[in-house]
Amino acid sequence: MSGPSADLGLIGLAVMGQNIVLNMADHGFTICAYNRTVSKVDRFLENEAKGKSIIGAHSNEEFVASLKKPRRVMLLVQAGKAVDDWIETLLPLLEAGDIIIDGGNSHFPDSNRRTQYLKTKGLHFVGSGVSGGEEGARFGPSLMPGGDEAAWAPIKDIFQSISAKSDGEACCDWVGDEGAGHYVKMVHNGIEYGDMQLISEAYDIMKRGLGMSSKDIGDTFAKWNKGVLDSFLIEITRDILYYNDEDGEPLVEKILDKAGQKGTGKWTAINALDLGMPVTLIAEAVLGRCLSAIKDERVEASGKLEFVGRVKEFDGSKEQFLDDLEQALYASKIISYAQGFMLMQEAAKEYGWKLNKPSIALMWRGGCIIRSVFLKDITNAYRNNPDLKNLLFDDFFNKAIHKAQPGWRDVVAKSAQLGIPTPAFSTALSWFDGYRTKDLPANLLQAQRDYFGAHTFRMKPEAASAKYPADQDIHVNWTGRGGNVSASTYQA
Amino acid sequence: MSGPSADLGLIGLAVMGQNIVLNMADHGFTICAYNRTVSKVDRFLENEAKGKSIIGAHSNEEFVASLKKPRRVMLLVQAGKAVDDWIETLLPLLEAGDIIIDGGNSHFPDSNRRTQYLKTKGLHFVGSGVSGGEEGARFGPSLMPGGDEAAWAPIKDIFQSISAKSDGEACCDWVGDEGAGHYVKMVHNGIEYGDMQLISEAYDIMKRGLGMSSKDIGDTFAKWNKGVLDSFLIEITRDILYYNDEDGEPLVEKILDKAGQKGTGKWTAINALDLGMPVTLIAEAVLGRCLSAIKDERVEASGKLEFVGRVKEFDGSKEQFLDDLEQALYASKIISYAQGFMLMQEAAKEYGWKLNKPSIALMWRGGCIIRSVFLKDITNAYRNNPDLKNLLFDDFFNKAIHKAQPGWRDVVAKSAQLGIPTPAFSTALSWFDGYRTKDLPANLLQAQRDYFGAHTFRMKPEAASAKYPADQDIHVNWTGRGGNVSASTYQA
Repeated sequence: MSGPSADLGLIGLAVMGQNIVLNMADHGFTICAYNRTVSKVDRFLENEAKGKSIIGAHSNEEFVASLKKPRRVMLLVQAGKAVDDWIETLLPLLEAGDIIIDGGNSHFPDSNRRTQYLKTKGLHFVGSGVSGGEEGARFGPSLMPGGDEAAWAPIKDIFQSISAKSDGEACCDWVGDEGAGHYVKMVHNGIEYGDMQLISEAYDIMKRGLGMSSKDIGDTFAKWNKGVLDSFLIEITRDILYYNDEDGEPLVEKILDKAGQKGTGKWTAINALDLGMPVTLIAEAVLGRCLSAIKDERVEASGKLEFVGRVKEFDGSKEQFLDDLEQALYASKIISYAQGFMLMQEAAKEYGWKLNKPSIALMWRGGCIIRSVFLKDITNAYRNNPDLKNLLFDDFFNKAIHKAQPGWRDVVAKSAQLGIPTPAFSTALSWFDGYRTKDLPANLLQAQRDYFGAHTFRMKPEAASAKYPADQDIHVNWTGRGGNVSASTYQA
Repeated sequence: MSGPSADLGLIGLAVMGQNIVLNMADHGFTICAYNRTVSKVDRFLENEAKGKSIIGAHSNEEFVASLKKPRRVMLLVQAGKAVDDWIETLLPLLEAGDIIIDGGNSHFPDSNRRTQYLKTKGLHFVGSGVSGGEEGARFGPSLMPGGDEAAWAPIKDIFQSISAKSDGEACCDWVGDEGAGHYVKMVHNGIEYGDMQLISEAYDIMKRGLGMSSKDIGDTFAKWNKGVLDSFLIEITRDILYYNDEDGEPLVEKILDKAGQKGTGKWTAINALDLGMPVTLIAEAVLGRCLSAIKDERVEASGKLEFVGRVKEFDGSKEQFLDDLEQALYASKIISYAQGFMLMQEAAKEYGWKLNKPSIALMWRGGCIIRSVFLKDITNAYRNNPDLKNLLFDDFFNKAIHKAQPGWRDVVAKSAQLGIPTPAFSTALSWFDGYRTKDLPANLLQAQRDYFGAHTFRMKPEAASAKYPADQDIHVNWTGRGGNVSASTYQA
């Protein structure tokens, strides 16, 4: 041992961990690789890591002794108990000012807790979202670090060096306090669920609504990938539709239609409900996967529930409709991202975080699954106005959503007529039409709540009177019968 | 003191508690009324309770001493800590076989815990949903008791006597184990959110889509209340639309359109996400209230986001459209209840409860907010076949949903064209069209997940081959490039 030489130590040598280490070494950093099963360390050193600025450790003590101060330790282990266990293992060996980074898929409340806990020990905790899969980890992931801001300066160079780049800018910046990094990664994943659901609906409409072949649908995605929808997910959808099995038939048509999920979409939807934010598109995307999962029941239902409608088949210009479909997908995607940013904005308020919105969009620009040209426009929107209240208020997106509306409406209407399910397209349109409505029918709902439960209501300011003033909780005896609780004579 | 004389002791003399006591006394039971602030006991005895078979207590000891064995104690106190505090207070004074009933709005996991906890003390816990508001409590609530089944026989007579009746049957029966009673009450409330959202959308379509007056809309609800939609909520909606302010204008139009919520709808949506069940209508109803709540932002948005569409105004037969609207509301309601029963079915499986489905529908028939003729048909469906897998597989509802489809589709399509938000109508239709689809586009989604994350997929059994067998996790190298992780050349 010739004294500490490693810029960072990484624990957890599964493929993601190995790839991050190799990526860091490629950028000139000396990394100490470590793993609970130490045989993995030697295997890594003898193979992938050979000839690179990568050293290994075979004990906790050796690992910590290899690190330059302040020590930077990155965990890429399973989210949950393993992270806490490693923290406890490392604590006696580290000293004030050292940094522990969790790069796993942790739930943000855990990262909140760990930030606070390590602060009491004089250590700095970072919870970092890492996106881009194994290839991203190797050649340029999207990195979303948050936690104890004192840790940012010491890790910034390494993180921004290894991250994906977009127009020369690193897709990595400080996200915010405590679990903000993992929170933003969670919302990223929720948005990814939404994007995938939207693409699936477009595919279903082309396939069952227009009767197009997989090749023709692939061609359409290829065309869309040259326009406003240009993105990683559209590109791979094209590839998938072009991919034939050995019998020359498209493989995708043979794949079982039961969607899996790992839970981050669900976390996003639950968090939206907890914060009272109308993030409908992600919720529908998550529930859409749930519906797909009950395949056996759907097969049974398909034999019992027939299509009945006044429109029997698609009628009109297919070319026009495909343009409309592109606009419907684009508009729905704008709504989904607008909802996602509303959620992050509310979370920042609720949890007391400063969130850097232009940087979030930039971090999603490259490296991660939802990377797209679209996110450049979002980056621009928030750079033009960091206090932008809603993405739809930005000039670019405002124009885009107005242009997309007619086609979007037709796609939702025709799909309803033709019996093709469009939960995400539809909820996006309903949300847009609700959002742009000054007076929603919730006035009736408030009257109902007052009628049956004396929950009280308030007056519209412009309709207030001496009898019913503004800003007061009002209860009305709707039936004219006595008592301070209204009811009804209804007998079921 | 002349020995124990009370059939049940009730703690918590707010209006709900007082009304339950009065209701029990009306049915010939002797009740001991008790309250933490004992002055309330005396005030109650001297006023509302005067001349009835109601006694009072002024200390914990006096209260417990007044009760016949097995002692039946019912709590109507605030959900949460107050329930636990009262349980701890009572524990040293009660003995094996005594019963504690929580009639508050507790979250079902708390009732699970309390059932188990009291079992260790030899006591029986009941968590009971109570619905119908203050008037229901006084004259016949819907009661949904669950917990330790040993408690059912000793409380059955009191509970079924005071509950609402429907065609002579008590709207109260044993629901199931642990927190099953509070669980079913939670789903009831979620469904209530859905019903109210659907009615609000119908009102909005008539008002803004067809330009109808409040009086005409009231007339429509009055008419619907004589048909398949006959229910408490439709009836009160009619009343509300007929209710004029002193200037002769309908009061409902002056009420602020920011919907409040108490959280039970949110609990239902979160539980659906946790159980992976596609309960989309309640989720949209909860999120619809959230959207209504951000009124200030909507007002701002209404100045920035205009309607653009190819259809400028409603065109066609208004009479036909109103019939279609009735069918759309009816069909969406069927979907919502089908989703609700699916959720309860899954919960029973997940939590190991026996749930009595025909009884649940019966309990909701009378006394509670969602009471309706409709629930009689659901009761019949589950009585005809207690193992019915889905409400839509019942003959009656199967016919109803087929009949409703054409109008339902037109309402969703025209609303999309006209710019009227219909999140609940739309999600119901999309869900129906997804549910009855054997092959959903989730095959593409699984291909995407395998492409970018090597998540693997399975084959449709009918498409399996020697290369890609059924029931195996398969990964494909979609790009033809090496490595066990697929990726893409996409650069954002």
